[in-house]
Amino acid sequence: MEEVINLTGCTGTVSQLNYSGSTQNISSRVYKAMGFVLVHAGAGYHSESKAKEYKHVCKRACQKAVDRLRAGAMALEAVTAALIELEDSPFTNAGTGSNLNLCGDIECDASIMDGKSLNYGAVGALTGIKNPILVARRLLNEAQKGKLSAGRIPPCFLVGIGAQQWALGHGIPACPSEKMATKFSLSAYRRNKRKMEQAEKLETVYNPSKRRRQSSGTVSEIMVGHEEPMSASLDTVGAIVVDQEGNVAAAVSSGGLAMKHPGRVGQAAHYGCGCWAENARDARPYSTAVSTSGCGEHLMRTMLARECSTAMQTEDAHQALLEAMQNKFIGSPFLASEDGVLGGVIVLRCCRCGEDQSSDNFQALLVEFLWSHTTESMCVGYMSTHDSKARTHISRLPPGAVAGQSLAIEGGVCRLGVTD
Amino acid sequence: MEEVINLTGCTGTVSQLNYSGSTQNISSRVYKAMGFVLVHAGAGYHSESKAKEYKHVCKRACQKAVDRLRAGAMALEAVTAALIELEDSPFTNAGTGSNLNLCGDIECDASIMDGKSLNYGAVGALTGIKNPILVARRLLNEAQKGKLSAGRIPPCFLVGIGAQQWALGHGIPACPSEKMATKFSLSAYRRNKRKMEQAEKLETVYNPSKRRRQSSGTVSEIMVGHEEPMSASLDTVGAIVVDQEGNVAAAVSSGGLAMKHPGRVGQAAHYGCGCWAENARDARPYSTAVSTSGCGEHLMRTMLARECSTAMQTEDAHQALLEAMQNKFIGSPFLASEDGVLGGVIVLRCCRCGEDQSSDNFQALLVEFLWSHTTESMCVGYMSTHDSKARTHISRLPPGAVAGQSLAIEGGVCRLGVTD
Repeated sequence: MEEVINLTGCTGTVSQLNYSGSTQNISSRVYKAMGFVLVHAGAGYHSESKAKEYKHVCKRACQKAVDRLRAGAMALEAVTAALIELEDSPFTNAGTGSNLNLCGDIECDASIMDGKSLNYGAVGALTGIKNPILVARRLLNEAQKGKLSAGRIPPCFLVGIGAQQWALGHGIPACPSEKMATKFSLSAYRRNKRKMEQAEKLETVYNPSKRRRQSSGTVSEIMVGHEEPMSASLDTVGAIVVDQEGNVAAAVSSGGLAMKHPGRVGQAAHYGCGCWAENARDARPYSTAVSTSGCGEHLMRTMLARECSTAMQTEDAHQALLEAMQNKFIGSPFLASEDGVLGGVIVLRCCRCGEDQSSDNFQALLVEFLWSHTTESMCVGYMSTHDSKARTHISRLPPGAVAGQSLAIEGGVCRLGVTD
Repeated sequence: MEEVINLTGCTGTVSQLNYSGSTQNISSRVYKAMGFVLVHAGAGYHSESKAKEYKHVCKRACQKAVDRLRAGAMALEAVTAALIELEDSPFTNAGTGSNLNLCGDIECDASIMDGKSLNYGAVGALTGIKNPILVARRLLNEAQKGKLSAGRIPPCFLVGIGAQQWALGHGIPACPSEKMATKFSLSAYRRNKRKMEQAEKLETVYNPSKRRRQSSGTVSEIMVGHEEPMSASLDTVGAIVVDQEGNVAAAVSSGGLAMKHPGRVGQAAHYGCGCWAENARDARPYSTAVSTSGCGEHLMRTMLARECSTAMQTEDAHQALLEAMQNKFIGSPFLASEDGVLGGVIVLRCCRCGEDQSSDNFQALLVEFLWSHTTESMCVGYMSTHDSKARTHISRLPPGAVAGQSLAIEGGVCRLGVTD
């Protein structure tokens, strides 16, 4: 038995709330291998014209994860399958189609965490590998095998050329950067380069002694305010999964900010910031999984993934996430000097529940899932092993709400049951 | 007025405690520009023969920080001065004299955090720069200036070649790697390479199908157990400072593990793991600063710097650190599969205190400082602006205590006063 309901929202002084109206059909099918996946294709701004593409890729990613779950795979394997699909889409800012950096190169960040073992793997500023998540996953796997020769401790975080060499040495094939760039990413790069040159020229004309704007606001800030934003794919993709045993896993992958400095590493490669997964134990009644998206520096400095995971141990999931987004993100003292705080999260928590038992051997998992963002929009998809197809949704801030200062929060509940 | 006393320790089931006997003289001198610094030159194993060198460098680092504090510098500037001295020593595993990686190259990690602004800067796997901390510091400074041209968000974490290019572009000079390697680091590299080759050969002979040991223990583990450990400088240096205004700052710098894979980034470049600094505000009565040392992967996965900072908000500083080291490090669920958990921290917390007021304008700072480690030993130094010279100490686990499972904890209290 399964149902998805909308959680009700509340309006605070800081937040603007937004509700979706999706209600999923109750399915009578009962699978032995059950599970649930929630994916995102970025928190940023999704135009109506591109919405279809983003929804499609979320749908396919959910399907891949659910296929693995139905085959009895664990959460870690299912979350990897979803990420590969998200990275392979030329529309997302991860893997193929990633934003280009200042030099016109693609450098990717990715990480993955297993809620059962609490193992973690991450890569930063990785070039020439089609699926960065596969390298992060392989780092996690290799670390689980124990120490290296002569008692050396295996790495859990590799960057740059060293990360690429490690990947190649572990059988992950190279992919020429040209194959990962798309028509869109290349033309966006050329437009952005022109914009930067114009902005720097204007700054020099209006204020020759100061090439950089201060937070108080100088010419370039005003100029940027009147200009359209930098052309770029939306930031970061991710997925969170719970499997039939109640294990959770989380992953995230990103091409980073458009026109970033080479070597810049964002939240997607940062422990506690890009993704988090932790099974229930002792004083933690819920298993939780989180994946984030948005401005890497904002998500890093607030450690948003871990903060949301911790928050989700309190009773009311919706209220907990709302307060975390208000107090630990928008109102965070770590971002006090920022004009706007841009990011989004997908969150799930689950626990075993004993209601509606039809036999002595009945086991059920209650999965509560939510997404929240301070960006204009966020594209999500979700699916359980009981569903025939994934549901997708582009969540938007309500009209008039200011991105970076307001938030939208939505979610649902899904009960998964199985008879032995 | 100033005094340093030893905090008393307690023995738990997990920990072995160790006490030092240092009691500092009470100084009658009163400076306008006051402050305090605590530095470490690594948690690991310090032989008696090298103890003198480590103590010397700690002493010099304290002196540099205090010189800056006396000149009215803020905590951030003083902590940077201490780090440069620690990095420049050929005996420490940071900057000059860093461990060599698998390819014989030096790749450094460093980070710095300002407790006042909560700004942060970090570099990872950085080559060819004599003082990695200067790049981290410059990243922090540049980010404080606000956005880059065309509204781009400035980076707070750069790695690899991109980090090096950014440093050179910001006027930090290049330094050939040959100049950063020392006789000791080069001979240690050759010894380690032989050890690795021997270990891999033995593994293949005893268990040809399995080139890596599992945590259950195979041939190479036994062999390593009988062999001396990998030759290496001890891991990571760091410093924490409080200035006359009560601002705190923290920094850390490391050459990383000996024979690490190129591109491996450890805790010294990881937000929340290598260092933490947070001024008092609202519900946080104490300003806190932390710097860590030891096995990077263990310190990362437990986010030890931030955990210790959070713990230090409870009343009894010594008890708080003891519990944090026991529960969040040695007993951490994130390291449940590890045989031993290796690391050390230096911690300070301070608050304004009103006791012993000699005039209406009297301001005093109460600084509690502590160090704790699960490694065989840890070398620390500390000094206030009232002292004529720094005190240094090599803290050791008590005889019979097992490194990785036991801990030592020591510390003192220092009251700094100033009349306007």
